[in-house]
Formats: sequence, structure tokens, C-alpha cells
Amino acid sequence: MGAVAFHSGLDDPEAWGRALAAALPGVDFRVSPNLGDPAEIEAALVWRPPAGFFAPMRNLKLVVNLGAGVDSLVGRDDLPPVPIARLNDPGMVQLMTSYVVFAVTRYARDIHLFERAQRRGEWQYIHPRALGGISVGVLGLGELGGPAAAALAGMGYRVTGWSRSPKEIPGVRWEASLDAVLAGSEILVVLVPLTPGTRGLIGARELALLPPGAKLVNACRGAVVPEGPLLAALQQGQVGEATLDVFDTEPLPPGHPFWAMPNVLITPHLASITVPEAAAMDVAESIRRVGRGEPPLHQVNPARGY
Amino acid sequence: MGAVAFHSGLDDPEAWGRALAAALPGVDFRVSPNLGDPAEIEAALVWRPPAGFFAPMRNLKLVVNLGAGVDSLVGRDDLPPVPIARLNDPGMVQLMTSYVVFAVTRYARDIHLFERAQRRGEWQYIHPRALGGISVGVLGLGELGGPAAAALAGMGYRVTGWSRSPKEIPGVRWEASLDAVLAGSEILVVLVPLTPGTRGLIGARELALLPPGAKLVNACRGAVVPEGPLLAALQQGQVGEATLDVFDTEPLPPGHPFWAMPNVLITPHLASITVPEAAAMDVAESIRRVGRGEPPLHQVNPARGY
Repeated sequence: MGAVAFHSGLDDPEAWGRALAAALPGVDFRVSPNLGDPAEIEAALVWRPPAGFFAPMRNLKLVVNLGAGVDSLVGRDDLPPVPIARLNDPGMVQLMTSYVVFAVTRYARDIHLFERAQRRGEWQYIHPRALGGISVGVLGLGELGGPAAAALAGMGYRVTGWSRSPKEIPGVRWEASLDAVLAGSEILVVLVPLTPGTRGLIGARELALLPPGAKLVNACRGAVVPEGPLLAALQQGQVGEATLDVFDTEPLPPGHPFWAMPNVLITPHLASITVPEAAAMDVAESIRRVGRGEPPLHQVNPARGY
Repeated sequence: MGAVAFHSGLDDPEAWGRALAAALPGVDFRVSPNLGDPAEIEAALVWRPPAGFFAPMRNLKLVVNLGAGVDSLVGRDDLPPVPIARLNDPGMVQLMTSYVVFAVTRYARDIHLFERAQRRGEWQYIHPRALGGISVGVLGLGELGGPAAAALAGMGYRVTGWSRSPKEIPGVRWEASLDAVLAGSEILVVLVPLTPGTRGLIGARELALLPPGAKLVNACRGAVVPEGPLLAALQQGQVGEATLDVFDTEPLPPGHPFWAMPNVLITPHLASITVPEAAAMDVAESIRRVGRGEPPLHQVNPARGY
């Protein structure tokens, strides 16, 4: 087994080194930029590596993406035709589900209104609605969207899901028409992977199909919901509230209008991250498999984009 | 069957009238103060009725409490010795669970810190912790606390529960010692019924046992967590954050120090309310049962207080 290269601006190399050594004893784990002889690298664990990162790794056999979305890996010109694997990370699924449940419930329970009432020092009673009467649409029912939709349904929300191919998820009604999901969603959760087919998916036309004052949660990629139309819809009230974890430019630049909008909640792209302890077993198994000439676990289809 | 009296300052009499008529066709449903001849009243659906409310109802056979806590009914001197029933209301359970999941997850995912960072216009990345490493204590594992603890465990939190008698809840470790639960809870959720035994349960001594900076969620009754010691612990940072739905005096008076505290989130006593459509079937059955001289469903033990 050759060496394993690690590069991420977000993930903790020490935690990954420990977790991978536990799953793959004796692993030669090298953290960027101290990668030694690049010809010795056979596997790379990466989150958004710089341009040219892969070019000198002429014996590379596997790339493991440290996040959920592989859009930053697909289509690079320095990447040899080796298998790309995503993580199957129960910790990542738990984190995304918790984020979505939080964001949806904050709106469903009128907490955003109580936050404002508190700033006015005002006890503003709003009679709660039964959760079964609150319609939530989930766009994308994959590794992250599927469990999030199931969790929302389990809590009692009325959940409709949309994905390219039909999905059977307990309590979730699958709907083939995006327009129909939009028209029926008081709260819309966007969790599709960023691909050429989903770039700009929720634009001005789609936002206008939502019920007036709808709430939007984007925890996938900023480019799926372009900022111009979203900003306009938030200013006009067509979108009443938004919880945004992802943006066209990250970090969101100082002075960006989102910062000062009382109806936008901003989080710094951490709805879901990998948890090394939960993910390292599968990474070790994938390294062993490609060493034997087999495909890795959870291989991504680069043409499809996920 | 005699008439049914309804009194609540919060619940919607029309929704209850419709729901009860559907479950008990022909019901003579009378909304306070228009109760007609009080001798005709055989059942009363109430939330905090005024003093003397029950006194003229000399043929009363059943009192149904429209909230979870019966503390405001126990020990009244105008209430004849008739059975008191609580609601078994799946809608109420869903609402409480959603509130608790929201409040715990807001802290677990550092959202309270991102809210403050946004007010400063600052992208403050905080690496998320795996949910399994976050310890949540739930005090009270009854009709509302039990499902809330189970939901938190299902999301991945490390949950310890405390109740008078041992409870088996999947994923929840039951602990007999209150002090041990307090010492081990980064986030403490208080959901015990208010009884003589729980009044002042979480005072200065108990708050001091929590890990420094712990978060507290109170969604049962203000008197369980006396305001003086809580205020002091919040000001000193021993309790880092609190989400409070209940207070000594409700509505919370204008100018109360809680209003202006950045580390307190105030909601106006609505974590959980009854949902008539979900609860009316059992109320109808209880009315039929007491009409036949049988005990109602979900009878409360007034001596125990729940």
C-alpha cells in the first residue's frame, strides 16, 4: 500500500490521521503541503484541493472526497481517470438532518417571530399550528436529503420530496413535478447536488411559484439558488424567510446585503461536515479495494455529478 | 348525556366544538361564559378556569384538562371530587418534541453563536461536533418528556433521562441520581410536572452542579426553575444559555431582566398545546365512560399531581 495524501482547509488532519490509522494500521498518512515524493501517493483524501494538486501523483489510484458534494472535483484537468469515492458517513447524515430539522422547526414553531418580539420586549402569543398541517418540500432525496425528509416526516410534518428518480421514503410523498412541489411548500428545503442540471435550479420563475411568504432553507450549494433572484424575492416578501448555509462566494463577503437582512439566518457552510471516526472505516476499505484492483465503496459517477 | 362546558383563555372554542361534535354527535357544547343552567353540565373541558368556576356545577362528573400540566386544577376548593382526566394528544406530543428538538439543536449546532456573528456581519466558522458527543439530560420522562428524550436519542444525541421511577426508552440511559444527570448534561431539558415535590427542583445548588456554561431549556413550569437563582447563574455564566417557555408570572412582565439578556431565548408558553382534532376522540370516549359510571381515560392522580 502506498501513501495517503490529505488536503482540506476545513477538516482536522490530526483527527483524520488518528481515525485512519485505527482503521488501517501502519498507514503512511501525509498532510498537504508535506506530501514527500508525490509518486508514492496512491490515495488522496481531499476537500477542494488547489489547482494542479493531483498532477504530480502519477501512481494515484483513488480520490476520496471529504464532503458531500463532489462538484469541485468533477471536471478538473489535473485529475487522472481514477475512481472518485464519496464518504458514507453516518455522522455527516446526522449533522445535516439536525440542521434541516432545526431550520424547518424554527419556522414551523414561529421562533423567528418570537426572536423579534423579544427584541421589542413583547410577549406575542401566536397559537401553534399542528405539525401535520405544515407542508415541507424537500428537493433532493439522496444520501443527505433522503434521511432529512424522513426525519421531518417522522416529526409529523407533511413532507413532499422531489428527486430525479422516484424514491420510497416512509411518510414522504414523492412528486415528479418540481413546479407542483414548489407550489405546495410553505417551507422549501434545497438539498440537491450541484451538477450542470441543478445549477440555477431555483431561479426567479421557481421562487414565484412558492406560496407567498414561503420559507427557504439552502444547505447544498449557493449556485443552486442564484443570489440575485433570491435577494429580490426576500426583499419583496415572496420569500418570507431564508436560512442559508451556502453562498455564491464563501466566506460571504463583508457588506453583502444578506448580512443585514432580518429575514435571513446565515450559517458559515457547516450544515454537514465529515466526522472522521464515523467515516474512516469505509475509507480504509476503499483503499484496500483499489489496492486489489477493485472499485472503491461509494464510487461517484463523474458524468452524473454525484 | 348532559352538557359539556368549555373554558380556556388559549384554546379555540370553535375548533373544539367542531372536533368534539365529530367525535360525539349531538353533543351540547357550551362555551364559557354562556353556560346556561350549570346543573346541566356533566363534563368540563378547561384550561385554568377562574376561581369558583366549578362551584355551581352540581352534576359535574368529569373534568378534562386542556393542557399537559394539571397543577392549576389540583387543590382547588371549588372542584367536587370528580375524576380529572388529562388529554392523550398526539398533536401535543409532536409540538413538545419539536420545541425540545429545536431548542437543543440550536445550541448543539452553535446557532446562537452564528446569530450573534451575523449581527456583527462576521463569518465565524466553528467546526461542528458529532452529535453523539453532545450530552443532553432530560428531567421528566412522562407523556411529553419521554417522547422528547426518545426523539433526541434518535437524532444521535447522547441522552440521559431522569424520572421518579425507572423508564425504558430506546437510546436513553435512565439515571436515578438527579445530581449525576446535572453534572453530566451540557444541555439540560426540564419537563417534569409541577407538583409539591418538583417546585423549586432546579435551584442554586442544582444549577451549580451543571458543567460551567451549560444550556438550559425549561418548557414545563416556571416554578420548577426559580427565577432568582436562574437569573444569577445566567449573569455569572454558570448557565451559558437558556430557552424559556414558562415563567413565574405569565405573560412575562415588561422590563423583566430576561427580555434584554442576549443569552436567553423567550417563547410565550406555547411549547405544547392541545390539538383538538387529535384529542377529541379520547375526550368523547371519556364522556361516554363516566356516563356509564366508569373511570375516564387518562385519569390523573390528584395526590401525585400527574
